[in-house]
Amino acid sequence: MPAASTVRARDCADALEELRAGAPLVQCLTNIVVAQWTANVLLAVGAAPAMVDNREEAGAFAAIAGGVLVNLGTPYAETVSAMQSAVASATQAGTPWVLDPVAAGALGWRTEIARKLLAEEPTVLRGNASEVMALTGGAGGKGVESVDTPQAALAAARELAGLHGTVVAVSGPIDHLTDGDRVVLVRNGHSLLTKVTGVGCALGAMMAAFAAVLDDPLLAAVSATATLTVCADEAAARVRGPGSFAVALLDELAALTPQHLAAKVLLG
Amino acid sequence: MPAASTVRARDCADALEELRAGAPLVQCLTNIVVAQWTANVLLAVGAAPAMVDNREEAGAFAAIAGGVLVNLGTPYAETVSAMQSAVASATQAGTPWVLDPVAAGALGWRTEIARKLLAEEPTVLRGNASEVMALTGGAGGKGVESVDTPQAALAAARELAGLHGTVVAVSGPIDHLTDGDRVVLVRNGHSLLTKVTGVGCALGAMMAAFAAVLDDPLLAAVSATATLTVCADEAAARVRGPGSFAVALLDELAALTPQHLAAKVLLG
Amino acid sequence: MPAASTVRARDCADALEELRAGAPLVQCLTNIVVAQWTANVLLAVGAAPAMVDNREEAGAFAAIAGGVLVNLGTPYAETVSAMQSAVASATQAGTPWVLDPVAAGALGWRTEIARKLLAEEPTVLRGNASEVMALTGGAGGKGVESVDTPQAALAAARELAGLHGTVVAVSGPIDHLTDGDRVVLVRNGHSLLTKVTGVGCALGAMMAAFAAVLDDPLLAAVSATATLTVCADEAAARVRGPGSFAVALLDELAALTPQHLAAKVLLG
Repeated sequence: MPAASTVRARDCADALEELRAGAPLVQCLTNIVVAQWTANVLLAVGAAPAMVDNREEAGAFAAIAGGVLVNLGTPYAETVSAMQSAVASATQAGTPWVLDPVAAGALGWRTEIARKLLAEEPTVLRGNASEVMALTGGAGGKGVESVDTPQAALAAARELAGLHGTVVAVSGPIDHLTDGDRVVLVRNGHSLLTKVTGVGCALGAMMAAFAAVLDDPLLAAVSATATLTVCADEAAARVRGPGSFAVALLDELAALTPQHLAAKVLLG
Repeated sequence: MPAASTVRARDCADALEELRAGAPLVQCLTNIVVAQWTANVLLAVGAAPAMVDNREEAGAFAAIAGGVLVNLGTPYAETVSAMQSAVASATQAGTPWVLDPVAAGALGWRTEIARKLLAEEPTVLRGNASEVMALTGGAGGKGVESVDTPQAALAAARELAGLHGTVVAVSGPIDHLTDGDRVVLVRNGHSLLTKVTGVGCALGAMMAAFAAVLDDPLLAAVSATATLTVCADEAAARVRGPGSFAVALLDELAALTPQHLAAKVLLG
Repeated sequence: MPAASTVRARDCADALEELRAGAPLVQCLTNIVVAQWTANVLLAVGAAPAMVDNREEAGAFAAIAGGVLVNLGTPYAETVSAMQSAVASATQAGTPWVLDPVAAGALGWRTEIARKLLAEEPTVLRGNASEVMALTGGAGGKGVESVDTPQAALAAARELAGLHGTVVAVSGPIDHLTDGDRVVLVRNGHSLLTKVTGVGCALGAMMAAFAAVLDDPLLAAVSATATLTVCADEAAARVRGPGSFAVALLDELAALTPQHLAAKVLLG
């Protein structure tokens, strides 16, 4: 494919500038474990979180939000209904939305929910390698952690992207993102990211924030990944362990300039 | 009005001393985003949090708690029932309670719930300017953030205070608090407070804690606001961003002395 | 009893090494206040958390998890059903599970739930003194805090251990743990532990993690307590207050070596 069609570091920097200027309202239907962390990540990076996940209001709010996150970390009867309403409303209103199928493959009920939601054609599907592979019929991971590599999941990602017209973002040591045609790798990041709960969940929320202000969903997903992982590199360099890393990551997300992002991101 | 009827810095200091001595049990019916943060804020300042928000127990517990917080951040069918039980029980038992109508005006279902709860005459109503104005029939904000200023909401606050016999606390860059008669401004605080989720929610919980140990609800609401915002000033002076600010704020809440509070609070 | 039957510092060190090697999958059915904190504590110490607490999946997951935590901090109709399924499944599969009866004695509904779950014979029962005493018919505490000492609860703990074939861990300034026969005291820990919400809840989760990799449930409970409280001592020595203490505690849990644990733990 021609080089011009891929995402450049400078595009990510411009995207971050757009995000800060737009301060998009991001509706999160997410899990009880990471709701606070996700809101704090969105605030730090410059977006406005709103955790509207009840049956009565989720649909109406998805029509006015800039972007929507649907995360299956701790689904319950009520919140799954809310997710379905939000997705229907987002689709009708043209609101971009992100599906994060946490632990798909490992658990039957949510795997079915994830498949149905995927059929609604999310703007972005974000997961680890096992979750993405499970949605094409793979065996799935152990709990919430991946037992497969992003490289191995790339074929599944391209297949899902083609089938559902969605961008697929496979998170891992090297993030692999594709819209079925273009493939972008992000090589930043640090192993401490796996020692803080909800980093991947917050990344999904960031993708919804970037998608709210950009026309290109692949650029949105790549920019979110680049922003998070570049900040992780910075934070990891000056902390003692996972507790101080999570704190420093929020600080870095707020401090990151578009110029610094462009200088540090390693795209491939 | 005579100067003697307003709240003085020294009254806030005495109030903090009362809070530390009483260590009041504060029942929080709050949202999934800020429950942990709210409990940690209450513990840091010297109160005892208890997050009892289920249908079966909320009413009974409100009769034995020192104060009750009802926060509409993420309402669900079950927790709304629990809130209604808790409010009925608090009213009957004479337990002071605080209503925080998160995103009232922006979302229909919760706006109706907030109006009904307000008719039960909370001891304190705490919100941002848009939320307070929405409860008098205003247009409401965008999501959970205010699009109006506390100054603009003061007339609405006085109206609600008069109608419902409640103290109304309008949070913002300058906090405006009124019991319908007296008006108190608190001029402390820092913009980093808007970059951490749940600071306003935790402030509502602190108001319930102060109201549990004081006879004057306006003094309780002012003392909570003074305590939080003075600590925010201290914390902001020595941090790098929103992550470390939230951590430092908890440290300051635990370290604050009544003397320091009296010396630093800017009342108007 | 002979000295050889008690737990030695070196056994705790070996247990920590087992935990790190096994990285057990720990299913947590816990409360909305501490879910994030609990997951981060488990990740820091070397386990793999999975917060599967819905009615549809809890039972199936308990059969594949290494250990299960059932914590009654914020029970709802749906999550209580999930707990019952998880316990039935864990029992059938031989998965060790920990019961944490938060606020048992203070609130009627959950006290009944706790009694029924206790009759299912958890591998470990962990609570504060008031909670443990309430389960033998004592009066119970005020909210979530203990009004009794672990020493006073020891008789109740031995009784419950004998009746239900469970290890009982009574947390407090000096932790008292017993399997009905052996009694182990852990003398580490710091008062800042009471100023961070969910430390006890996370300790219950850590006990499930250790029980997943050890045959002796008393050793599992003691090793979890030793690990947490030794890290608390380290963290408390270098922080300003409860906010920075919580952050430092996670860092210490990740940094702790088996050798350091053996050198610092004070067993009695």
